[in-house]
Amino acid sequence: MGAVLLMRNIRIIVEYDGTCYHGWQRQPNGITIQQVLEEAAGRIVNRPVKIVGSGRTDAGVHALNQVAHFQTESTLPACNLLRGINSLMPADIVIKDLADAEEGFHARYDARSKIYLYYLHNELIRSPLFDRYSWHVSGRLDVDRMRKAAEYLRGTHDFSSFCAAGGDVIDHVRKVFGISLCRRAHGLISFLIEADGFLRYMVRNIVGTLVDAGSGKINPEDVRDILASQNRTAAGITAPPRGLFLKEVKY
Amino acid sequence: MGAVLLMRNIRIIVEYDGTCYHGWQRQPNGITIQQVLEEAAGRIVNRPVKIVGSGRTDAGVHALNQVAHFQTESTLPACNLLRGINSLMPADIVIKDLADAEEGFHARYDARSKIYLYYLHNELIRSPLFDRYSWHVSGRLDVDRMRKAAEYLRGTHDFSSFCAAGGDVIDHVRKVFGISLCRRAHGLISFLIEADGFLRYMVRNIVGTLVDAGSGKINPEDVRDILASQNRTAAGITAPPRGLFLKEVKY
Repeated sequence: MGAVLLMRNIRIIVEYDGTCYHGWQRQPNGITIQQVLEEAAGRIVNRPVKIVGSGRTDAGVHALNQVAHFQTESTLPACNLLRGINSLMPADIVIKDLADAEEGFHARYDARSKIYLYYLHNELIRSPLFDRYSWHVSGRLDVDRMRKAAEYLRGTHDFSSFCAAGGDVIDHVRKVFGISLCRRAHGLISFLIEADGFLRYMVRNIVGTLVDAGSGKINPEDVRDILASQNRTAAGITAPPRGLFLKEVKY
Repeated sequence: MGAVLLMRNIRIIVEYDGTCYHGWQRQPNGITIQQVLEEAAGRIVNRPVKIVGSGRTDAGVHALNQVAHFQTESTLPACNLLRGINSLMPADIVIKDLADAEEGFHARYDARSKIYLYYLHNELIRSPLFDRYSWHVSGRLDVDRMRKAAEYLRGTHDFSSFCAAGGDVIDHVRKVFGISLCRRAHGLISFLIEADGFLRYMVRNIVGTLVDAGSGKINPEDVRDILASQNRTAAGITAPPRGLFLKEVKY
């Protein structure tokens, strides 16, 4: 006669350096963040664990606060679960917070918006010390022009022009709540974008296009036409993943 | 009849991420920054090149502005030398500046002082994104106590207590011009130290000892006795290399 075990719903906040991973989502051809977390959690609770993230991050993309949830019958206190799983984490992944969530909490379905951060390193000479976490663009960028270009993306639009080809997502309409660009110390430019959801490569395609506006290759108002064309080839290149961080998920 | 070739003296400023190197100095058992630079410069000027740094940095230690010099009969303009050598550099090393120096300029003998920077990450939970460039200390550190402890190191002292055992340097007297500690965003503490020279592991042994003062393991005034003992075992542990950066060399 076993005791009646309550199913708990656990919410975790995860930070990771994505350099060495094939992204968040489990896949057959390489190691992923989700897999590392699931295997560690499974060892601690002695049962297979399925971890659901707020969304995927691509290969090489980092996260400051990825949110995920998993269900378990374990009776271990939250702080022991946290310590136990973290004791099995490699140096480039850590659970920053772990707590019991409401029964119905779902990391993906309940997310209202996400904020991504992108770092550009805009100096003539590249920097080995920023290399892992930024995209080096040596030509001087005009941040005001990039801001003007970004303004056309604010609001509800069909973002097909900024979406990777060949995905299985049909609805390309997303709402961008805000974009901000800021010159920082040491030649860094930070780019923040908040939206109700993101298509595959959407942030990186936007960054690539804004760099074209900042370098003078296109005019800021061209972004309006790029958006209207609903054609991926109209926009700029895909910025590399190294500069991209999932910063926050809002519920 | 060859033309008379002038020997030029070239000064370079180098930035590197030392994570994957066995330090600055050439050695038989692993790849070093000096070796990578010498091989690349040698290919560009078509002659073996000997590069003299301002001093060694240990395995895993980084540099923002390491200074070095080399002599060459090459007639390539400085900007071409810079571009040429940098085109052969891996992602974790770059020459930030290259210029003709005075005939007698010597990167090591002429250095008047050096500034090292050390980052501590002082939050309960470690951070994968700071891991490469800081030492994680989870217990809360009292920066005021660390500052008080550091005051005893300012000035001219015999630093035997903070010097790695077994070195071939006999004179352990160095002059510390200044030390500053600062709480930064995201749980970081920066530590800056300027001195006329540094013994092997001196910065890292000082940081290890100041962390003991900040955690309460020793009292700030104990540093006076540690210094006076001229005994390495009196001081704290050697802080890991990952948090250490050679920031500036003054001439």
